[in-house]
Amino acid sequence: MKKPIKIAITGSGGNIGYALVFRIATGEVFGPDQAVDFSFVEIKSSIKNVEGLMFELEDCASPIVHDMKSTLDVHEGFRDVDYAILIGAKPRGPGMERKDLLQVNGEIFKTQGRALNEAASRNARVVVVGNPVNTNTLIAIKNAPELPASSFSCLLRLDHNRAVGMLARKLGCAPDEIRKVTVWGNHSSTQFPDLQHCEAAGRQVIGLVDDEWRKHTFVPEIQQRGARIIQARKASSAASAASAIIDHVKTLRRGTAENDWTSMGVLADGDYGIKPGIVFSYPVTTRSNTQKIVQGLKLDDYSREMIRISEAELCEEREAVKQLLK
Amino acid sequence: MKKPIKIAITGSGGNIGYALVFRIATGEVFGPDQAVDFSFVEIKSSIKNVEGLMFELEDCASPIVHDMKSTLDVHEGFRDVDYAILIGAKPRGPGMERKDLLQVNGEIFKTQGRALNEAASRNARVVVVGNPVNTNTLIAIKNAPELPASSFSCLLRLDHNRAVGMLARKLGCAPDEIRKVTVWGNHSSTQFPDLQHCEAAGRQVIGLVDDEWRKHTFVPEIQQRGARIIQARKASSAASAASAIIDHVKTLRRGTAENDWTSMGVLADGDYGIKPGIVFSYPVTTRSNTQKIVQGLKLDDYSREMIRISEAELCEEREAVKQLLK
Repeated sequence: MKKPIKIAITGSGGNIGYALVFRIATGEVFGPDQAVDFSFVEIKSSIKNVEGLMFELEDCASPIVHDMKSTLDVHEGFRDVDYAILIGAKPRGPGMERKDLLQVNGEIFKTQGRALNEAASRNARVVVVGNPVNTNTLIAIKNAPELPASSFSCLLRLDHNRAVGMLARKLGCAPDEIRKVTVWGNHSSTQFPDLQHCEAAGRQVIGLVDDEWRKHTFVPEIQQRGARIIQARKASSAASAASAIIDHVKTLRRGTAENDWTSMGVLADGDYGIKPGIVFSYPVTTRSNTQKIVQGLKLDDYSREMIRISEAELCEEREAVKQLLK
Repeated sequence: MKKPIKIAITGSGGNIGYALVFRIATGEVFGPDQAVDFSFVEIKSSIKNVEGLMFELEDCASPIVHDMKSTLDVHEGFRDVDYAILIGAKPRGPGMERKDLLQVNGEIFKTQGRALNEAASRNARVVVVGNPVNTNTLIAIKNAPELPASSFSCLLRLDHNRAVGMLARKLGCAPDEIRKVTVWGNHSSTQFPDLQHCEAAGRQVIGLVDDEWRKHTFVPEIQQRGARIIQARKASSAASAASAIIDHVKTLRRGTAENDWTSMGVLADGDYGIKPGIVFSYPVTTRSNTQKIVQGLKLDDYSREMIRISEAELCEEREAVKQLLK
């Protein structure tokens, strides 16, 4: 068994955390010979839930779970962590405007960014899941100036997996035959799931599906998929979100496949003409816990327009929280 | 990818099912190259939940999920299944006596036993999880006379894992250094978690823990662990139960380790003096989807007495449902 790595998780008292933690405990993400120390960073109202989760984690008798602790103190919770998975966020309450939501969550991610800046391992990877996730990530990055911005990314993998799944069903192929899907932009209904460079079983998808389906069925259904799940489950996606977090972290560690990429939100630095200084989802390749934006993809007018809409939304979000970015 | 195997799950609209299905979809149980067809056998009140689960399962874009269907019809749901995991059961409601609970659930497992008898693959393995699990298993066995009784087992692995976990914490060793724990009897508070033959890192546990702790802390805490989880979570064990189901099925398929065994409920046939014709948890070794009761263990007076109590409870349960056993 290798020396433990330390994984901090916020929001593990919620449904996504509950679906995630036990899967990490199987060794699925970090390997069956990699010991892990869990650090559950919680708020008061969830600490009882986390206590129950920890009891159940004990009851799994996992050989790789070396230690587990819960704490209300972010500094203590993030001390020397190798991975921080930030799931906890305040959901939109009744009568709450998007702006209020950005503000309330912004404060959470400001605090967490600062704590990571002071306490986390200098090689830590931070994966942000809590919504509004792109802008929360931006706030965390700006409040952790001593950690490289490139060590932060946010989860668009659920959208990416949804796009892969839907296309595979449409074409009657296996999901692992689908390559080079991109979800661009914001993890919101302005996201742009893009099939322009996509391949299915080695063939260009653009020749296999018509424009009408792609633009007027596929794109809006992926954009609205989260709402569809809530309607069916009377609760938001949890197991599929946890599954996407696992895929995101696994892909970071093990690398994307040859001739493929994944989607994740990273700090924009001008690539594809996106305004620098927002957290934007791009096609990226990964290797040894680092990501690189795929370069040189040709975008048609439709794609550019779709990307522009999501960029504009993210610029507005940034404007709404600008006092948290100092 | 290997030709799909068909897995029926009842109760997948509940919390254990939700924690289980996505883990099967990773290939953890049946292997990353084994395609699976899911058959979700449900009752009307849960069918919406299962629809949501199926959407989320699509959103995981798992290459091994070949097909999924939900149905209200047990015959259709169990048609040609290779594995049936029977989780769905009616929980004890207010004012309901144990006898009523046995009756209500007995009817469910009678119907399911009959449907398995008619529809399942002749090589199907049936794993029963829904409580009162031992007697539900007995009812299913008796109503499926054309399937070998030895293809049915019920889940005591959660209790087994709890015992392993607690002992590992007590001794400061890793859970996979603990061997030869047995949980005997009924999956109820009369279960007997037995350390008499247990080894920790190669040493006899009986010499490492005192009798007082073993009999008056360890045994009652394992017996009451389920209630302790409910108290902390305000909900019963779900992720740890799913984890135990996975361990149960994995151990059936891949076999117990050399010099170790596991615990599962099987139809008693006189071993260790237990009355034949109840479903009793024994120490078993497994290989290629079959189990064998470990023979020749010496039991002291204390163990025999503890086992007797659980046996008596199971005989009473059988008596209460005897009209369902024809």
